[in-house]
Amino acid sequence: MTIKTLEDLFHETVKDIYYAEKKLVKTLPKMAKQAKSPQLKKAIQSHLTETGHQVERLEKVFASIDKKPVAKKCEAIEGLLKEADEVMAEIEDARTIDAAIISSAQTVEHYEIARYTTLICWAQELGLDDAAQLLQATLDEEIAADQSLGHLAEDYVNQKAAA
Amino acid sequence: MTIKTLEDLFHETVKDIYYAEKKLVKTLPKMAKQAKSPQLKKAIQSHLTETGHQVERLEKVFASIDKKPVAKKCEAIEGLLKEADEVMAEIEDARTIDAAIISSAQTVEHYEIARYTTLICWAQELGLDDAAQLLQATLDEEIAADQSLGHLAEDYVNQKAAA
Repeated sequence: MTIKTLEDLFHETVKDIYYAEKKLVKTLPKMAKQAKSPQLKKAIQSHLTETGHQVERLEKVFASIDKKPVAKKCEAIEGLLKEADEVMAEIEDARTIDAAIISSAQTVEHYEIARYTTLICWAQELGLDDAAQLLQATLDEEIAADQSLGHLAEDYVNQKAAA
Repeated sequence: MTIKTLEDLFHETVKDIYYAEKKLVKTLPKMAKQAKSPQLKKAIQSHLTETGHQVERLEKVFASIDKKPVAKKCEAIEGLLKEADEVMAEIEDARTIDAAIISSAQTVEHYEIARYTTLICWAQELGLDDAAQLLQATLDEEIAADQSLGHLAEDYVNQKAAA
């Protein structure tokens, strides 16, 4: 039993999302390479830059609670990315590949939205105002990234309808 | 290569979320049992009933595209639930257990929100109006479930602040 308080749970969950963000820094370039449309490639590359900043922001969150930045294997992101890989391996059509990438990326964004929303709630309860502010900045970016992906998915639909 | 068109991708993704919903029908009773607060137990039990209806709705989606209901292992839900189990195993404090359950349940809701949002988008593109309507009914329930969990998380904060 390593989690005795909400503060411990907060710390463990920051380690979890730190692992996830670092994993994404490695994975997003691969996704951008697989994407066929220039708009989707650009959206992923731009979110990669943002993700790098989110990693640094999490390092500031660790510092704000006097902890060293440590990543703890995040089974959720492993499962989400394994699923994304499995689907990609079965697709041959270029346009379907982009639809699948957008879909997988949105499951990742939603995982992060859920995690950051919870972490902000706990940070507020624990009076960790600096951490709450840092996490809010990232949450805002994740929500915007999800919305951008949603627009790309809709464009895809409209394009097809117009074709 | 089994996915050649968006219709194939839609079908594969319905199989994926069908697996996830069926898995949740088995997992939610365990989560309800682990929950300490009566409100959280009740919320999970009520979502279990809803999840049963969502499984039936997915069977109607399969029927609407002339396919048999088949579940395909969903690595994402496996990862999300594995992570939830691992965290639970490390907690001893009752109030922290409830915070962790709410948090894990919200990651599951967000996975489902992402999946159903995508499926509705694709169903519309493919002219699958019946499927789109069925999936929309479930998406509305998932969003409401996530909001209820969010309120429980906030109540938890306020309760603690008042204590």
